[in-house]
Amino acid sequence: MPLAEKALIARIRAQTRRHPAIPVGIGDDCAVLRIPSGHEALLTTDFSLEDVHFRRNWHPPEVVGHRCLTRGLSDIAAMGGEPLAAFLSLAVPAQLPQTWVDRFLDGFLALAEQFRVPLAGGDTAQSPTEILADVVVLGSVPRGRAILRSGARPGDLIYVTGELGGGADALHRLFAGKRVTPENYPRHFHPIPRIAIGCFLREHRLATAMIDLSDGLSTDLGHICDESRVGAEVLADSIPRARVGRPVEAVDLKDALHGGDDYELLFTASSRKHVPPRIAGVPVRLIGRISRGKKILLVEEGGKCSPLRPEGWEHFRGRSR
Amino acid sequence: MPLAEKALIARIRAQTRRHPAIPVGIGDDCAVLRIPSGHEALLTTDFSLEDVHFRRNWHPPEVVGHRCLTRGLSDIAAMGGEPLAAFLSLAVPAQLPQTWVDRFLDGFLALAEQFRVPLAGGDTAQSPTEILADVVVLGSVPRGRAILRSGARPGDLIYVTGELGGGADALHRLFAGKRVTPENYPRHFHPIPRIAIGCFLREHRLATAMIDLSDGLSTDLGHICDESRVGAEVLADSIPRARVGRPVEAVDLKDALHGGDDYELLFTASSRKHVPPRIAGVPVRLIGRISRGKKILLVEEGGKCSPLRPEGWEHFRGRSR
Repeated sequence: MPLAEKALIARIRAQTRRHPAIPVGIGDDCAVLRIPSGHEALLTTDFSLEDVHFRRNWHPPEVVGHRCLTRGLSDIAAMGGEPLAAFLSLAVPAQLPQTWVDRFLDGFLALAEQFRVPLAGGDTAQSPTEILADVVVLGSVPRGRAILRSGARPGDLIYVTGELGGGADALHRLFAGKRVTPENYPRHFHPIPRIAIGCFLREHRLATAMIDLSDGLSTDLGHICDESRVGAEVLADSIPRARVGRPVEAVDLKDALHGGDDYELLFTASSRKHVPPRIAGVPVRLIGRISRGKKILLVEEGGKCSPLRPEGWEHFRGRSR
Repeated sequence: MPLAEKALIARIRAQTRRHPAIPVGIGDDCAVLRIPSGHEALLTTDFSLEDVHFRRNWHPPEVVGHRCLTRGLSDIAAMGGEPLAAFLSLAVPAQLPQTWVDRFLDGFLALAEQFRVPLAGGDTAQSPTEILADVVVLGSVPRGRAILRSGARPGDLIYVTGELGGGADALHRLFAGKRVTPENYPRHFHPIPRIAIGCFLREHRLATAMIDLSDGLSTDLGHICDESRVGAEVLADSIPRARVGRPVEAVDLKDALHGGDDYELLFTASSRKHVPPRIAGVPVRLIGRISRGKKILLVEEGGKCSPLRPEGWEHFRGRSR
């Protein structure tokens, strides 16, 4: 076993302390975990692959660790769930400096601690050239109360948390060789999973459907509409465009509509329910309405309507537009 | 999204049917799963990386699919648990033929069906050159009844299921360019996780400690002794050496002692308990005894004792001896 792999296991074991929900953590064939009584388990897995989801020369190791756990926690948030434990499978090339792995774990564990999610297991291996992480997050939600993508009904209003497009704008600047710093693009480097908002919406029975914005509004709203068999109308002017850079400027509407990697929540709620304008300190914006049929339309100033097609999400490997 | 990735998702979705333990499968942010009442959750993750855990020119795609799910199911077996659901994260290079992915899934899903384990989710991505799979298996066990590595006590007897060393012998032959077929080496190509034996041992409260033999007897017995803070004496003559090849011959003792990849169960039981000579149709052999102290000794014919050192497990990447 290469040194980096041994050190990784030692460090994971050292941080896994006795935790009431985890009778057995790292060091056995499986982790043993307690799901709270009356709850169902939630499970999500997310790859974070070098040159697909991050680049070693753009993202410090701590940022890679933070971002790959965010992806899993954000999926738990999107179900209205609470995270119970994380699992990290990490394959690194033999020649990777030990400091990279240490700093990766610093970022991963800092976010885990912030959300009180113990790292309860995983796997390690040597990879040929690239760094490969696969993160599993186990969570729970009261039985039958998970907020699915399939619950949106015609007439429901569409809401989004926070600001959109910051991730896409950061990516354009990185590809253009421009300076992108954690100060100017905090949510690109340190996206925060919206766990508290997801739980609030579930506890108050506000959301009829929910998804996290990892692939971009146009794609992810498409998923809600597909699963719920409905259409939607989105008001262009109401989209909260991220304010980024220095001097601070709002991103292009296109980036807010199609850019991924923002990890905000998109949800629908009955028009009879009162959705607060801020939840857990984060602004919540009304951006449209669910309709009958299958069309997803963007309504611009003056009432001009055009189809809002999913334009997907660019990975870090190369620029597709 | 490349074609292979799209087809993979479509196929996974098509096979995920309504299952009582899985209210929500693929197609939402998380899978939602029901853990049986009074049970704890078991979770294990295992990488299967090309040229580390398998080779494309040695292992047909169905075999790779079968073997990568076996690793996870075998971990569930080693806790005395029952599998509930599997999750497959698969990254494949863009130029990989679609038939490879189809046949991989054939092997994976055939084993999943045999153990009634639905494929409930996962992730897909494009990898630069190698095929990378990370398999998660979620299982359950009655609360407080998981069989850990840490429960062995001095005086307990040591048992092993099935036969050992077949995996290592197959590997030597593959490295030597010799013919290795599923007929002559069935457990190398299609290892069977010992779920029924693990459950029997747990239900009858027979095992004090258990582990699956993925890294080899010398290494895995070392894990039980480390976690239980005990030593062990193993009788060389009692080790069930795999009979493989054609004409059928028993493998070298060295392969049975140190070779990995057999996915048999190694467990300890109080000397006051009766352990049947066969469980679920599989022979169970008494191979030694747990002792005080930390030494792990191999006792040969005539009483000659020597330390049984963990000699680890060779991966498919290269030969280390």
